[in-house]
Amino acid sequence: MAMDAVIEQLRTQEPVFKNMLAEMLSIPSVSTLPEHKPDMERMADWLAHRMQEAGLEHVAVMPSDGNPMVYGDWLHAPGKPTVLVYGHYDVQPADPLDEWISPPFEPRFDGDYVYARGASDMKGQVFAQLMATQALLANKDCPVNLKYLIEGDEEIGSPTLEAFLQQHKELLACDVVLNCDTNIHAPDSPSISYALRGLAYFEFEVTVPKQDLHSGAFGGSIRNPIHVVCELIAGMHDTEGHIMLPGFYDTVRAMDDEERALLKQTPYSDDEWLALSGAPGLFGETGYSTLERIGARPSLDINGIWGGFQGAGAKTVLPARAGAKLSMRLVPDQKLADVAAQLRQYFEENAPPECRWELRTLSLGPGAVMDRKSPYMQAAVEALATVFGKAPFFRRQGVSVPVVGMIQELLGVDSIMLGFGLPDDNIHGPNERQSLPLLFKGMETYARFLAALDAAN
Amino acid sequence: MAMDAVIEQLRTQEPVFKNMLAEMLSIPSVSTLPEHKPDMERMADWLAHRMQEAGLEHVAVMPSDGNPMVYGDWLHAPGKPTVLVYGHYDVQPADPLDEWISPPFEPRFDGDYVYARGASDMKGQVFAQLMATQALLANKDCPVNLKYLIEGDEEIGSPTLEAFLQQHKELLACDVVLNCDTNIHAPDSPSISYALRGLAYFEFEVTVPKQDLHSGAFGGSIRNPIHVVCELIAGMHDTEGHIMLPGFYDTVRAMDDEERALLKQTPYSDDEWLALSGAPGLFGETGYSTLERIGARPSLDINGIWGGFQGAGAKTVLPARAGAKLSMRLVPDQKLADVAAQLRQYFEENAPPECRWELRTLSLGPGAVMDRKSPYMQAAVEALATVFGKAPFFRRQGVSVPVVGMIQELLGVDSIMLGFGLPDDNIHGPNERQSLPLLFKGMETYARFLAALDAAN
Repeated sequence: MAMDAVIEQLRTQEPVFKNMLAEMLSIPSVSTLPEHKPDMERMADWLAHRMQEAGLEHVAVMPSDGNPMVYGDWLHAPGKPTVLVYGHYDVQPADPLDEWISPPFEPRFDGDYVYARGASDMKGQVFAQLMATQALLANKDCPVNLKYLIEGDEEIGSPTLEAFLQQHKELLACDVVLNCDTNIHAPDSPSISYALRGLAYFEFEVTVPKQDLHSGAFGGSIRNPIHVVCELIAGMHDTEGHIMLPGFYDTVRAMDDEERALLKQTPYSDDEWLALSGAPGLFGETGYSTLERIGARPSLDINGIWGGFQGAGAKTVLPARAGAKLSMRLVPDQKLADVAAQLRQYFEENAPPECRWELRTLSLGPGAVMDRKSPYMQAAVEALATVFGKAPFFRRQGVSVPVVGMIQELLGVDSIMLGFGLPDDNIHGPNERQSLPLLFKGMETYARFLAALDAAN
Repeated sequence: MAMDAVIEQLRTQEPVFKNMLAEMLSIPSVSTLPEHKPDMERMADWLAHRMQEAGLEHVAVMPSDGNPMVYGDWLHAPGKPTVLVYGHYDVQPADPLDEWISPPFEPRFDGDYVYARGASDMKGQVFAQLMATQALLANKDCPVNLKYLIEGDEEIGSPTLEAFLQQHKELLACDVVLNCDTNIHAPDSPSISYALRGLAYFEFEVTVPKQDLHSGAFGGSIRNPIHVVCELIAGMHDTEGHIMLPGFYDTVRAMDDEERALLKQTPYSDDEWLALSGAPGLFGETGYSTLERIGARPSLDINGIWGGFQGAGAKTVLPARAGAKLSMRLVPDQKLADVAAQLRQYFEENAPPECRWELRTLSLGPGAVMDRKSPYMQAAVEALATVFGKAPFFRRQGVSVPVVGMIQELLGVDSIMLGFGLPDDNIHGPNERQSLPLLFKGMETYARFLAALDAAN
């Protein structure tokens, strides 16, 4: 079959691919730093050229309110599914620079790895997917319609994506999204994430006296804002790890027995998780396993807290104010606006009258759960099983990829999360890397996935 | 009577006094800054000379492990009480310098005030007391024996005083201490503080993971150290403001009805206290008035808290550790060692097993309550009433002056707290000042107090 030719082509082109990937990784497309604006445009142009070379049509660098979007399509499979490939060409800043063994934008090939900012998150994945498409199109063996949307603002929270999706609904209409912005469990253990948690992030501050006071003179006669903050935070969970915001669990979708059984098949152990965290013990909501706690149940964490004197030694201050940052990871069918309202209600009901408080929303990003039984998901399972010689397991991830929920809402389709990073790739950190053998397996998987979609209509 | 001559002499010498006080205030005797070491010696010498001029004998600058102690005595009233005058010649650092209207060590006389670091805390008080003694001795009208102990390390917590007191118990033996390191309630409202709270200061830190983790990946599966810190802090009080450390109130000495009635006579209102604090409301232990809460009841305050991300914006971190500074104000008969043990027991009983914690003691300073009915106290009441034309009221203060408790323990005597600063003198802050009319009233009060002690034997 023609797939053999596609795979053969991918394997013989390894040296070419490495050079091309190195070129891509050497462009410092850091979206958050204004001085890299020209690099963002250079990166978008580079990508548009590669997409054209791959055989895509209507390739365009499209303006947005932020960095440009790169679009392309190939729509010559009438009656067959249309796949929208989502990715991003921007990367995180590289600092701390002095912790990098080699410069972050001078890709270094060492053994099985390439080291560079963006190697795993996610230029490597975008590149692998594009090369798979190129091989398919070159061999006239692409059985589905393809659309590409590669954005340049993902690392700053995709602030322009929602408006762009709304504006170009028809252009981007599709049956399923292929999102390569993810990893697999381990090199010999393929996985598919079918659920991602939403993220709601807040900040609050409690004020009592108008200025810092002497704790000897005033202690015991007015509220201490640190105490108030701590009492509010302590009251957000009960001793069994349940979140106590009013109505918080009302809309949380329960897992059915099948799904719970499925999650149990994850090659995972509490001992390994404990070792990975370095904590003296695990703890979470009573009645749920660790995998359920991080994947299928909402969580609430204080990400930062401050107040009073933090220096060395003793200062007897009763501070004017104290505050904290708070984020929640949300699961279906929790609504972002609901939890924001529940948090506000909690403050209204629990903050004592002898203080002033302020609660600010910093960001709200939706979560998503995908249909594990869709033909698209089955195509991904099939492709992974063929390439890795082992069926992938399904996992719920605790992390958030807001674009997946955004696409569900605006385009009405699921995303198949298929990427070939690894958990220890140091994404967002120094010495980010990508396994090359895995990247080549990824190319093959992408090609087989698209081919398998033929039957998914 | 001879007292008239003493008062007359004090009044006519005002210009001389102002020059001498300016000289004293211009020596930057900042105990905490090593570069001022020569100034400390200069200050001690200056003081020794003034004490000699005042007619004291055996004047000596005595070495200690810190800055020198200045001693002097006059012991020519056999069978009469011996008064130990305690004071300190060191001052707080003057920063922030740019907030001073005139340089902190160039005394500025403006209207009723002299502005300089140490004017109120407490060179002004030491000076006033010494001038009173000088006038008494010059008029051969000192009816009691006098000893002086002026230290140079009070502003850094009197670290060498305890050893010095132990070493020189006989030299310093006395019937009562006159401690001038305090203020009065208002210019027209004399007061005597007869109770000071003890101070125990701690720091603790809770660690869960070995390093900061991603709150999406791990949130809900391990303890968040910020939550643990907040739960521990929240549990330290109940909703009625009681402190929940095990056995905390067991030794707290209750006030009797007489004392409660006495405190009610304080010219004080909750509205004023509320306005002074700027808080939206008062809050404290159920069943006690504000004055009782700050004066007669122990309190526990978190003075600082930290953990996780404190910058602008959002970071989804589950931090490795969080911590806080905690201090308690203690009342008779609470023992410092007991409350330290109670706090440790509280941690042992309440910190969850899935975390590590560390608790450190930073300082322990005793409180004190003086006998309001002693003849020494009566002498002070009498002197204040004569000079201010109004009987002083008794107050319990929330603040701590550890030397008072230390002297009670080691020398077995009470301290009469008699000083003429005001609550708004900005001690420890920029533009510290001292009211001159009040300082001259103070000289007269000191003279009348010592004279009145004649009857106190």
